[in-house]
Amino acid sequence: MEFLYTALPYRVTFGAGSSRTAVAGELEALGLRRVMLIAAEAESALADELSAPWRDRVAVRFSGVRPHVPDAVAEEARRVAAEHDVDGLVSIGGGSTTGTAKIVALTTGLPIIAIPTTYAGSEMTPVWGLTTAARKETGVDARVLPRSVVYDDELVATLPDDLAVASALNAMAHCVESFWTPASNPIVRLMAGEGVRALAEGLRGIRGAHRDAARERLVYGSFLAGMSFAAAGSGLHHKICHALGGAFDLPHAQTHAVVLPHVLAFTAPAAPEVAARLAEALGVDDAVEGLRELGREAGAPRGLRELGLTEAQLEEAVGIVEAKLPIEHPAPVDRAAIEGILRGAFG
Amino acid sequence: MEFLYTALPYRVTFGAGSSRTAVAGELEALGLRRVMLIAAEAESALADELSAPWRDRVAVRFSGVRPHVPDAVAEEARRVAAEHDVDGLVSIGGGSTTGTAKIVALTTGLPIIAIPTTYAGSEMTPVWGLTTAARKETGVDARVLPRSVVYDDELVATLPDDLAVASALNAMAHCVESFWTPASNPIVRLMAGEGVRALAEGLRGIRGAHRDAARERLVYGSFLAGMSFAAAGSGLHHKICHALGGAFDLPHAQTHAVVLPHVLAFTAPAAPEVAARLAEALGVDDAVEGLRELGREAGAPRGLRELGLTEAQLEEAVGIVEAKLPIEHPAPVDRAAIEGILRGAFG
Repeated sequence: MEFLYTALPYRVTFGAGSSRTAVAGELEALGLRRVMLIAAEAESALADELSAPWRDRVAVRFSGVRPHVPDAVAEEARRVAAEHDVDGLVSIGGGSTTGTAKIVALTTGLPIIAIPTTYAGSEMTPVWGLTTAARKETGVDARVLPRSVVYDDELVATLPDDLAVASALNAMAHCVESFWTPASNPIVRLMAGEGVRALAEGLRGIRGAHRDAARERLVYGSFLAGMSFAAAGSGLHHKICHALGGAFDLPHAQTHAVVLPHVLAFTAPAAPEVAARLAEALGVDDAVEGLRELGREAGAPRGLRELGLTEAQLEEAVGIVEAKLPIEHPAPVDRAAIEGILRGAFG
Repeated sequence: MEFLYTALPYRVTFGAGSSRTAVAGELEALGLRRVMLIAAEAESALADELSAPWRDRVAVRFSGVRPHVPDAVAEEARRVAAEHDVDGLVSIGGGSTTGTAKIVALTTGLPIIAIPTTYAGSEMTPVWGLTTAARKETGVDARVLPRSVVYDDELVATLPDDLAVASALNAMAHCVESFWTPASNPIVRLMAGEGVRALAEGLRGIRGAHRDAARERLVYGSFLAGMSFAAAGSGLHHKICHALGGAFDLPHAQTHAVVLPHVLAFTAPAAPEVAARLAEALGVDDAVEGLRELGREAGAPRGLRELGLTEAQLEEAVGIVEAKLPIEHPAPVDRAAIEGILRGAFG
């Protein structure tokens, strides 16, 4: 047993209703008096409501959020933050909203309070992303890690079921891949295993009679998924999804949801111990079949074709991932392996 | 499910031999050129050996380590650090050695690299202690948390079996109590459960044929115990042991080892979910009986009387703990409860 464990300084408030009760205290604890409140247009009413108790601390609102944080959005957000001389950032929204706050923090060092409304997990990572001329650049910087995260499962109640399932399976992918990346370690696997358990429970219940309890499990699982991903970094699965998302603009969460069972099926025979732990966490006998069944039951998207990928693009995707070789993985990864996974995921 | 989770910024290198291979890199990563190397007289040869590869970075050695960090030791250690204008501290030893480094860091802010040789767990906490005129003062300060910890199970190989067992049960107490302190949360319970599992495995093997493997489990468990204690803080068990240790100078680890089963027996009926998780982690049907049996098998000390406590002191101890009431706990704690636990632990 040999490992390196690096723990990030997190502060997380978790609980139904906490987005209404905890944020004022977090602003006070961080000494923030003039924040920029970042929320997409679609979440404008929610942002009004949540910020009511600390309205006097909002110096300016920013709603120009776009997927993948285009550089024009980054520039505008930074300009507005500077113009209003803000001392902090509060983001209310999914990965793109958190990502906008991060891109401002990257150059300004402003502290972020993140209030997630999806299962993206970005709020637990020091990873930022910026898209310039259709090319997404990503990086890791401690300054973009939110100083405080407030998880409130009431906020995900309005997510449409299909999106909730895809977003939860994206979180599942963070957990699963955390078992085998080069930076994985026993503590990450502990958190990732708990995340798999919570996400599986939540996915089984999300379309059922106990949706509130299911949502709570999913938020808890996405928190663990974010922490796991932050510590374990990305591996084969994320490289494949990143290639597909970057080149063909496939929807992020759905792509992860489709690809994951195929990467797991490829990996499991070479990592029987991981497969056993995943099976136990999923509450099934066989991890590969269990994950597949979980996606089917939850109504996950079935294939990349369904997400809009063409046969020609599939071939191109194989080449893009191949260009990233060598990829450290429990099973040796070559062009044939990549092709097998992508053909399987095509559907 | 409602909780607050605060994660400390840890950097932990774990593995057999890492005290020989990893420290130079950690010094370099922290930019340390002139450290004070703190190690007790008894560990002087070990300190020579481990520091050989980075001898040129040792500005001065300090060996005046004493249990509970008396104020005279603190003053002397701080004076030596200042006199030699050191830029960091490396501690090689158990809780008292780490504690000496911490007391220097408390006033100077000097970064610590800790290399533990017992299962004390202090290296994972921001808790410092200082004894003035036989009164131990403790506090919490982020500056005393080691910046880097190097765990090497080869270093605990020389611990006498009885001490190893007591030290491991002290770590077990950190884990067990983490399940029910007011600051406990699901992430802490996850780490503490893993700690209980590892410590139980290690304790079962420490006097057997596979001592190396057992020691590795114990070091891993003590690392988890330290993290759990740092996050969950202290509760009834620690308040009892602190009272006994402070007033009657009972040996620290042994006191924890003796008292823990009695606190658990008192608590389990009021916290059946905790008892079930502990039983699962201990690999037994019943947590209370399982922990008792584990201590018996491992040859733990049996009672406070055996540790030197008198009947009159026992009565006095009840009063000292009673003075700390109210204590938040799953079961209501009053004088009778304290008396019951202490009488049970008397043996």
